[in-house]
Amino acid sequence: MYRKKFMEEAIKLANECFETGNGGPFGAVIVKDGEIVGRGRNTVTADNDPTAHAEVNAIRDACKNLGTFQLSGCEVYASSEPCPMCFGAIYWARPERIFYGASCEAAAEAGFQDTFIYDELGKPIEEYSIKTEQRDGELASKTFQKWKNFDKRIDY
Amino acid sequence: MYRKKFMEEAIKLANECFETGNGGPFGAVIVKDGEIVGRGRNTVTADNDPTAHAEVNAIRDACKNLGTFQLSGCEVYASSEPCPMCFGAIYWARPERIFYGASCEAAAEAGFQDTFIYDELGKPIEEYSIKTEQRDGELASKTFQKWKNFDKRIDY
Repeated sequence: MYRKKFMEEAIKLANECFETGNGGPFGAVIVKDGEIVGRGRNTVTADNDPTAHAEVNAIRDACKNLGTFQLSGCEVYASSEPCPMCFGAIYWARPERIFYGASCEAAAEAGFQDTFIYDELGKPIEEYSIKTEQRDGELASKTFQKWKNFDKRIDY
Repeated sequence: MYRKKFMEEAIKLANECFETGNGGPFGAVIVKDGEIVGRGRNTVTADNDPTAHAEVNAIRDACKNLGTFQLSGCEVYASSEPCPMCFGAIYWARPERIFYGASCEAAAEAGFQDTFIYDELGKPIEEYSIKTEQRDGELASKTFQKWKNFDKRIDY
């Protein structure tokens, strides 16, 4: 069930981000059983970390607090529509649902490339604007065979 | 220019990942001017961090080593085709090119959900398997107006 107070907290974090000089205007919280279990602000510029988006930081914080690499039964509240990196991160964390505030078109108007990256991922790989090529695929795939035969494997 | 020795290093890291119990069978290196400037192993299970894929870890390592949040002029070598999260991370880091080894179909055969997440991101948001909704978009978008008017803004 959507609760506005959690979105307000995500928006508060978004405002704090740039007012304190940490990064872009994005915030996120992770909620479990009606309680906030993780918080994230965008810290890209402060941490010199292009992956430090609010949702990624919130997922890391929640996983650390809960001692798990899966956010089963959790809800993600993000002040803005997650970019492909953050949606990917959310999928790997496997929460129950996502609420987001501003659309990625609104983010694009403010100068962020979210819609551009969504468009890129819809193209055939040879048309990506960052030139992307497969090399030594056979050699690299041998690792998966070793993984499948590895008896102490931790699946995730 | 592709250099096999860097792919071999990425594959070596991929093997080390699970043999040392850190995470899945994935490795990546970041190369600048013919030198490795960042390394990453998948550490999802060891770090309880679903975002700790090899490429994300390698980008973070390279950015830390270079003191920047942009990987201009760098090449990414990944033992396996980056998932949407990692492609997003790579796009935000803006390197010059990407070489990957195993395909994401090979990763899917080994039990990883890369192709599933690619398929999800191609769907309309209301069809996502993790229920995703926009709420309070107008309230959340106000933050972008503040950001645009903020005089100490660091664009990225």
